[in-house]
Amino acid sequence: MIVLFTDFGLEGPYTGQVKAVLYRTAPAVPVVDLFADAPAGRPKPAAYLLATYGSWFPAGTVLLAVIDPGVGTQRAALIVEAEGRWYVGPDNGLFELVIRRAATARTWEIPRPPGPLSASFHGRDLFAPVAARIAGGELPSDMPRQAHIGRHVDWPDDLSEVVYIDRYGNAMTGLRAALLPAGGRLTASGHALRRARTFGDVPTGDAFWYENSNGLAEIAVNGGRASEALGLTIGSPVAIDF
Amino acid sequence: MIVLFTDFGLEGPYTGQVKAVLYRTAPAVPVVDLFADAPAGRPKPAAYLLATYGSWFPAGTVLLAVIDPGVGTQRAALIVEAEGRWYVGPDNGLFELVIRRAATARTWEIPRPPGPLSASFHGRDLFAPVAARIAGGELPSDMPRQAHIGRHVDWPDDLSEVVYIDRYGNAMTGLRAALLPAGGRLTASGHALRRARTFGDVPTGDAFWYENSNGLAEIAVNGGRASEALGLTIGSPVAIDF
Amino acid sequence: MIVLFTDFGLEGPYTGQVKAVLYRTAPAVPVVDLFADAPAGRPKPAAYLLATYGSWFPAGTVLLAVIDPGVGTQRAALIVEAEGRWYVGPDNGLFELVIRRAATARTWEIPRPPGPLSASFHGRDLFAPVAARIAGGELPSDMPRQAHIGRHVDWPDDLSEVVYIDRYGNAMTGLRAALLPAGGRLTASGHALRRARTFGDVPTGDAFWYENSNGLAEIAVNGGRASEALGLTIGSPVAIDF
Repeated sequence: MIVLFTDFGLEGPYTGQVKAVLYRTAPAVPVVDLFADAPAGRPKPAAYLLATYGSWFPAGTVLLAVIDPGVGTQRAALIVEAEGRWYVGPDNGLFELVIRRAATARTWEIPRPPGPLSASFHGRDLFAPVAARIAGGELPSDMPRQAHIGRHVDWPDDLSEVVYIDRYGNAMTGLRAALLPAGGRLTASGHALRRARTFGDVPTGDAFWYENSNGLAEIAVNGGRASEALGLTIGSPVAIDF
Repeated sequence: MIVLFTDFGLEGPYTGQVKAVLYRTAPAVPVVDLFADAPAGRPKPAAYLLATYGSWFPAGTVLLAVIDPGVGTQRAALIVEAEGRWYVGPDNGLFELVIRRAATARTWEIPRPPGPLSASFHGRDLFAPVAARIAGGELPSDMPRQAHIGRHVDWPDDLSEVVYIDRYGNAMTGLRAALLPAGGRLTASGHALRRARTFGDVPTGDAFWYENSNGLAEIAVNGGRASEALGLTIGSPVAIDF
Repeated sequence: MIVLFTDFGLEGPYTGQVKAVLYRTAPAVPVVDLFADAPAGRPKPAAYLLATYGSWFPAGTVLLAVIDPGVGTQRAALIVEAEGRWYVGPDNGLFELVIRRAATARTWEIPRPPGPLSASFHGRDLFAPVAARIAGGELPSDMPRQAHIGRHVDWPDDLSEVVYIDRYGNAMTGLRAALLPAGGRLTASGHALRRARTFGDVPTGDAFWYENSNGLAEIAVNGGRASEALGLTIGSPVAIDF
């Protein structure tokens, strides 16, 4: 299975052209849109989403992950193998948490292909062909092992910020709920929020936080939109109260 | 074929994870997104949409229908077989009109699976695996026949409200056009609207209603957006004038 | 491969029903969403997008292209074969540039099918079945050769207008960049814009134009949204300065 994690959207031409490349190269491999609205042009919050949502997929999955504000500049192009999953995308921090959380990880640099390469759509021209070949069983053994991947050691293990607003207005943080104190509160935009198991456990209209279905701490309002009720957006800070 | 009817959206992580489950369990079955923007958290208007749009599909189709404001609470999980189509989703009224309009219908309760179950994403964890198994030919004969499905006998056979606003701003009602008087008018937001066959039959800028391509009475403006021109939203009442 | 070029959107019921028809008729053929948000109801700007983005696909591709404000009226339904690609859709100018730019093109009129035909959804009822049959290898040899396709000789070879705003706020024009002077400027909304190779080549916040990954001249702002910064929308005029 090939899984797409991008900021390309689905309705315009970008995801469609990527899929056309994938279907031509690996016609028998299903392609799943995981995120087409990952944080646009922001590899740091995207890295926390990717590490959490990517790890839900079984070993063997190929994740084509493209949040690429530096497309057309000199940043490298990477293949990362982490706990049996393959990640393909730009070397801009997007894989920092995938690598950091993996017991074992290997990286390769994708060589620049011989033919013409667009300056603005490496998702289609550089990354998709590589993802399709890996999904088809080809291993990157003929590529040089990458020794100089850019690491971001100053990024924390969990990010106490909002990293994604979903269509219901729920605000996902970059915090893994399992690492938070059981009775802890989160404070966002001056609101101290208690933990609940799910929406139905708080009165309608109340804000709370809960462990979402992939393990992130997520801020929500039962029957409402937390992003608007609390004024949250990607990058809003979240404090952990013991 | 598996058909998705949800309020999950397509760009965020929800539909993608559902499809990943479906493709793993039933890799040869095509999956079609029918509605990813069905009335969010509102099973009643969604029930009228589902009954009409679901019946367009041939017998054997599996419809995974999840509008589920009570996810994580004690509402039951259902399989409904109605006129040869299979429906899988929560017991909250979403299947009321499917069952009421069917000549024959059978229902089963989905038992709680043995493993861990997220509190907020039964679409992925509970309903998708069952839909995939039915699509793969497995019948729910080993599940107990459901005797206590929640019925909503107070809901009308047709709903004289707006149940969906499409991307063009057209407002679908819960009324089947074939049951309306041929020369009848609909009144919405104080506007009496005459019936037309299609957009090209009224002057540009005029509001009208017509039988849409699936049989619902739909309010539209030729070359405009009826939802904004007339101030319509899901739940807006519609009166039938003889 | 069948490629969809429409203004149907993806979340509502239209694209899903089209795909259901395609999968039933040609189950082994992959379907790709190229544009679901092509200029709504506006065949002229859509024609320039289609000619450019369609020609990226290899010979044998079937493009189902439906921008159809006259659905239900007397406009004809067409099959166009141009340089080995097949196009299926309404006769309203949408194929004008495809035909004009092709070394060889043939056209057929699709006969009205014998059964019932909705007045408002020919994408599903008329065009999709034909596209699926062509994708499955059936040739339109039993259809009368079309002699009377509506041509739009007054439309220019390139359109100096904005034809599409993408999700990043970039404004694509109907101008092929390869035909523009190398050092030329574009003027839009009173702003004279210089050419750059890609985003990283201009300071953050600067507006510029560049040749996009499919060859169109596109107006962008590094790190910003050109559509809002410059007040651009579909139809906004663009002047070429030598």
